[in-house]
Amino acid sequence: MVRTTGVESPSPRPRIHQTHPHDTPLFQSTVAQTNLRRFNYWILVFRLTAFCVSLSAAVFMLTINAADSPESPRWYHFGAFRFVFAANSIVAVYSLLEIGASVWEIYSGCTVFPEFSQVWFDFGHDQVFAYMLLSAGSAGTELARQLRVVATCTANNAFCIQSDVAVALGFAGFLSLLISSLLSGFRLVCFVIKGSRFLH
Amino acid sequence: MVRTTGVESPSPRPRIHQTHPHDTPLFQSTVAQTNLRRFNYWILVFRLTAFCVSLSAAVFMLTINAADSPESPRWYHFGAFRFVFAANSIVAVYSLLEIGASVWEIYSGCTVFPEFSQVWFDFGHDQVFAYMLLSAGSAGTELARQLRVVATCTANNAFCIQSDVAVALGFAGFLSLLISSLLSGFRLVCFVIKGSRFLH
Repeated sequence: MVRTTGVESPSPRPRIHQTHPHDTPLFQSTVAQTNLRRFNYWILVFRLTAFCVSLSAAVFMLTINAADSPESPRWYHFGAFRFVFAANSIVAVYSLLEIGASVWEIYSGCTVFPEFSQVWFDFGHDQVFAYMLLSAGSAGTELARQLRVVATCTANNAFCIQSDVAVALGFAGFLSLLISSLLSGFRLVCFVIKGSRFLH
Repeated sequence: MVRTTGVESPSPRPRIHQTHPHDTPLFQSTVAQTNLRRFNYWILVFRLTAFCVSLSAAVFMLTINAADSPESPRWYHFGAFRFVFAANSIVAVYSLLEIGASVWEIYSGCTVFPEFSQVWFDFGHDQVFAYMLLSAGSAGTELARQLRVVATCTANNAFCIQSDVAVALGFAGFLSLLISSLLSGFRLVCFVIKGSRFLH
């Protein structure tokens, strides 16, 4: 019993900071740096896309029939459209911050927060915000369908079309964030397994 | 298996306790096997939960007001509720198959498909189905809200309460599937990095 715990207790944790004995540190670090740089460029591309698309979705929703008569429906009268607007705004702000962090990492070679916090922060937020955007998009889609059923759209078609576009842009933002989330998830597991965000 | 004989038999491999444990291939593989087994148990637990919860959600939706008058609303008249039912049924079937695959892997020590296909299959389906369940849940929630607005629920409150419960069970299924998806994602990245689904 004692011996078993003796065998198991060292646990995989100390290994995290060891390099594999067959790897040449210099070679590994240059290849790893090139890979990491390429990886960061890809993340940056998807974050830029997520930023542009979710900002457009939020602005689109915000400006729906701003110049129309006071009797026409407003987007903020509908809970699901408020959710779409809020989710897209949050993702736009988050993506902007992450773009800054990516650019910083590409140019300086180090992360804004300590490496451990950074990889967990990125993956956690990517996941939560991706699910939030998808949830907002689905609720918005269902509301748009219901508005067609109760004939709001025959009275004011421009309202429905613009809200459809905003919801669709939200889905595009979700796709970009989903890919960012997969990439940052990959980086997180690299970090958990090898103790470094550098890839091989 | 190897570890048990190694520890209990008189002295087949004294090396285990002399060299640094992390440098011994035998030790690594036994620890890897123990970790993998524990990991598989956790996946099995979450798959079982996902199966029970999403099956309940589908059955709950299916049996809403089956004995009511023909004039009362039916769940299949609403697109979003059909989506909730379909998504939960698909996840229940998928979880059942995955439970079978997990039990097989725990008892035989090898995967049903080749390892490469299995890890990609698991993670891909977990992700897609988790997003599908969340999307169905959000659409169902929004529809339930709208039904309250158009006063369907004052006329037939049991219908609304039962559909709320089905949607809530769908969200619980999503949470289980989300955790399975994180676990299988971790295993996939292990496989991509190290060419083996063994964790350490």
